[in-house]
Amino acid sequence: MQLNLVLVEPEIPQNTGNIARTCAAVGARLHLVKPMGFTITDKHLKRAGLDYWHLVDLQYHESLEEFLDVTPAENCIFATTKGGQVYADLPLPDSCYLVFGKETAGLPRWLLERYRQQAARIPMRPEARSLNLSNSAAIMAYDVLRRWGFPDLQCTAGKHEEVTCSE
Amino acid sequence: MQLNLVLVEPEIPQNTGNIARTCAAVGARLHLVKPMGFTITDKHLKRAGLDYWHLVDLQYHESLEEFLDVTPAENCIFATTKGGQVYADLPLPDSCYLVFGKETAGLPRWLLERYRQQAARIPMRPEARSLNLSNSAAIMAYDVLRRWGFPDLQCTAGKHEEVTCSE
Repeated sequence: MQLNLVLVEPEIPQNTGNIARTCAAVGARLHLVKPMGFTITDKHLKRAGLDYWHLVDLQYHESLEEFLDVTPAENCIFATTKGGQVYADLPLPDSCYLVFGKETAGLPRWLLERYRQQAARIPMRPEARSLNLSNSAAIMAYDVLRRWGFPDLQCTAGKHEEVTCSE
Repeated sequence: MQLNLVLVEPEIPQNTGNIARTCAAVGARLHLVKPMGFTITDKHLKRAGLDYWHLVDLQYHESLEEFLDVTPAENCIFATTKGGQVYADLPLPDSCYLVFGKETAGLPRWLLERYRQQAARIPMRPEARSLNLSNSAAIMAYDVLRRWGFPDLQCTAGKHEEVTCSE
């Protein structure tokens, strides 16, 4: 089981930094799809991900098309506020890619139409437009991990204990 | 069923803003326990919560002690990286208060020792120290909502549809 988080053309460095921190905390691979709205040396990104950046398994892609060329589409779950199934109900591939669009626009319509059965929505009140991107990524990532039984993650942190959930 | 998110002495306005946005999106009440590291008019807070602030059901408390005086302790789940049970395993009270400590220090030790059975950890790799506060709040809030069946939340957003999860 391998969790991957994919950010397509992210715009706000603090969101990417927080998502990198989540990836580092759970051992997920982070994919950044260009063009991005900032450079990886941006001080906000560094600050948000500070202690964790060296723990992040990071991969770049030159474009969304290039990412789709090298990734089995059936392994992807596409996050969207538009339609889709509830994220917690979607079947999970063993190698799972959670794909998120840019903050201001989400994923492109052609992508969501092509992969309608793999589009996941996080339920919200009708009058709410969206959640923060890093929050959405954390919610969906942790729901995958929960359904997998939190593999290789430390579930309690008592004194002199090193109990992981998969034990 | 009523979800409450409680921030004890929050320090970083953008985290509180993002958590306010989550609360607005799901209809959770937000409790802010003073002293806080910023004022509610702070521009970062406003920016992060911008469109959602008027949707937030907000309540202030002068201190942690005052909050505990007016809140049934058995309704609280205390988030901590130190020990505790896995958040997804804890029994849920009907009126649920998810309580989070300040970014730099977490909840005070005396509180976690007093309510050991209600301490919840989000599983992480042993080498990771913590997640971003607003991410932690989003993960735990949405797990409560998932277990409740996403009450009154809109689960799909197709054209001309207004399907909520509880229908």
